Amino acid sequence: MSKEYQYMQRAFELAKKGIGRVNPNPLVGAVIVRDNKIIGEGYHEFFGGPHAEVNAFRSATESVEGATMYVTLEPCSHYGKTPPCAEAIVKNKIGKVVIGMLDPNPLVAGKGVKLLEDNGIEVEYGYLCEELSQMNRVFLKFIQNKIPYVVMKTAMTLDGKIASETGDSRWVSNEKSRARVHQLRNELAGIMIGVDTVIADDPMLTTRLGKGEGRNPVRIVVDSSARIPLESKILNTGVQAKTIVAVTDKVDSVKIAQIEDLGNSVIIAKSRNGRVDLADLMVKLGSEGIDGILLEGGATLNFSALEAGIVDEVMSFIAPKIIGGANSKSPVGGEGIKFMKDAIELENIIIGQLGNDLMLTGKIKKV
Amino acid sequence: MSKEYQYMQRAFELAKKGIGRVNPNPLVGAVIVRDNKIIGEGYHEFFGGPHAEVNAFRSATESVEGATMYVTLEPCSHYGKTPPCAEAIVKNKIGKVVIGMLDPNPLVAGKGVKLLEDNGIEVEYGYLCEELSQMNRVFLKFIQNKIPYVVMKTAMTLDGKIASETGDSRWVSNEKSRARVHQLRNELAGIMIGVDTVIADDPMLTTRLGKGEGRNPVRIVVDSSARIPLESKILNTGVQAKTIVAVTDKVDSVKIAQIEDLGNSVIIAKSRNGRVDLADLMVKLGSEGIDGILLEGGATLNFSALEAGIVDEVMSFIAPKIIGGANSKSPVGGEGIKFMKDAIELENIIIGQLGNDLMLTGKIKKV
Repeated sequence: MSKEYQYMQRAFELAKKGIGRVNPNPLVGAVIVRDNKIIGEGYHEFFGGPHAEVNAFRSATESVEGATMYVTLEPCSHYGKTPPCAEAIVKNKIGKVVIGMLDPNPLVAGKGVKLLEDNGIEVEYGYLCEELSQMNRVFLKFIQNKIPYVVMKTAMTLDGKIASETGDSRWVSNEKSRARVHQLRNELAGIMIGVDTVIADDPMLTTRLGKGEGRNPVRIVVDSSARIPLESKILNTGVQAKTIVAVTDKVDSVKIAQIEDLGNSVIIAKSRNGRVDLADLMVKLGSEGIDGILLEGGATLNFSALEAGIVDEVMSFIAPKIIGGANSKSPVGGEGIKFMKDAIELENIIIGQLGNDLMLTGKIKKV
Repeated sequence: MSKEYQYMQRAFELAKKGIGRVNPNPLVGAVIVRDNKIIGEGYHEFFGGPHAEVNAFRSATESVEGATMYVTLEPCSHYGKTPPCAEAIVKNKIGKVVIGMLDPNPLVAGKGVKLLEDNGIEVEYGYLCEELSQMNRVFLKFIQNKIPYVVMKTAMTLDGKIASETGDSRWVSNEKSRARVHQLRNELAGIMIGVDTVIADDPMLTTRLGKGEGRNPVRIVVDSSARIPLESKILNTGVQAKTIVAVTDKVDSVKIAQIEDLGNSVIIAKSRNGRVDLADLMVKLGSEGIDGILLEGGATLNFSALEAGIVDEVMSFIAPKIIGGANSKSPVGGEGIKFMKDAIELENIIIGQLGNDLMLTGKIKKV
């Protein structure tokens, strides 16, 4: 492994430490190197906090003049919540900057590189791009489209059921798989379910990661007719996590006021065949800064989400057990697609194994 | 890798060349070695043909006196279709025999080893046992229980469907997966489906392996009320493969005669709740020498088979695509199991990837 990859790998590892803390900003790590020795490193630790480059400077154990900086993402050149990093790099007299991937943010987009080069700093870029794109896939979609990146998570038996005929679903997947889902809840800004899940299971949807760490995602309930029971846990635990109920404009304003009075938000989305228009809901959630959503829907909501084209990625847990039942539900229901040749396909398939459970993730192939 | 494992591995590879040709006999390979040089090798090539040891002697390029023989399975000591191999080994003055696994066949069971040792031949055993048991799993069950080893094969989308709501199932899995299924058809003595599949798809169930090779399995149709249409392909292609229709004793003898007149066999099985008692059917198929069955059932037959406890192994192909549909069928239907904690579990999970399709095999955990 060349030294560029080695130090970029270190910067990548640092960047990941910010998972769940920086949304909707990108995860970034930086390493300062002189004579094959790391003399400073840092990462973007929390939203609004100092950028990775600045943290690396602050941690430097000696003068950084003439040293090389490795940074996973192109340094910013615009004034946001913090002054531009490219300027800080110039001011600190860094000799060379090696960049993982360029920033697709239209406010940066090559301007960071230009500012550095204009100031006589040598710049190289294009390392670990695939890994970095994957790590920042939520940011990359959001910065360009202003709508959230949606991960549809499902868990089923080897015969394709999410519950038995009687509705029992505790548990389909094993402990390791369920822990992995809690990591996802920590990573993504929002979590979305349908009102039927609230009515059936009354879940909290908070993040349980063992050590009491874990950030709770904003809870989003798709509830076209505002059928949510006012005594639901999700409406009465605002101290732990914010809840947004998405309804259509056909809904009675009294119920909306009742939901809001409990400390929750209501989004009135456009209606589509009498239901919440999910594409419109994504635009509205995006404008509230929600850059990523974990969709833990039932069969009906999942199909609606796929049909509306809002799903980017599927994460499927498959438990090697069989429950049977002609009427047991499977992960995606709704009207369905008529012909197998027209099925929604996934690409960039990654397979993992968690104990005996299988985990398959893939991106929805856009047609 | 020690030389024992190296030569046993070679014998194992040779044994596999007999796949689909030796049922209900075991797959066996043998290698004769002197001074770290292979001087003879052979395998059990077809049912009733010479055993692996004999073929190895026949192929020897020099005298085998004092040489070491590596053989995957304990040499037989009884007169079957051929004279006992243990005697041939003694007669050929082999110096040492290294055995993969002992033969569980009650007619052999340690007697082969004893005959060799009684004749002053050094014997070692216990190499690659796990791989060899897996390779001979059909034989191992059949020789001990006289009922066939049943592999339930399913193919579903990532949302657990075997077809769309309209019934379209061409194709769920990709070409590589389908080719793998044809390999299975070649390996196992029988293939079993329900009459509903005959009515819906009118399949041939023959083996297509590209090169025109491939042995066709005996086709077994579970048809409790003898509803099979007399013009079905499966009843009129006896030249290519034998067909057995399994009915209950409630069935009209005229229909039975019509099926038989077309050159097919009929098995009258015990009835259980008005349907073919699958456990009884397995006993009857076993007595006809069918040692392994590929179950390509629909949702109802699959559940009945699991419920009857006749399934040994599940081979599940999962295609990374989504078809949706609240009424689309999944691999196992029927009445189902009430609680997730009582689900049928698999063990010895092996995961493979065929193109983008996932393949999961596992053994049914016996409770």
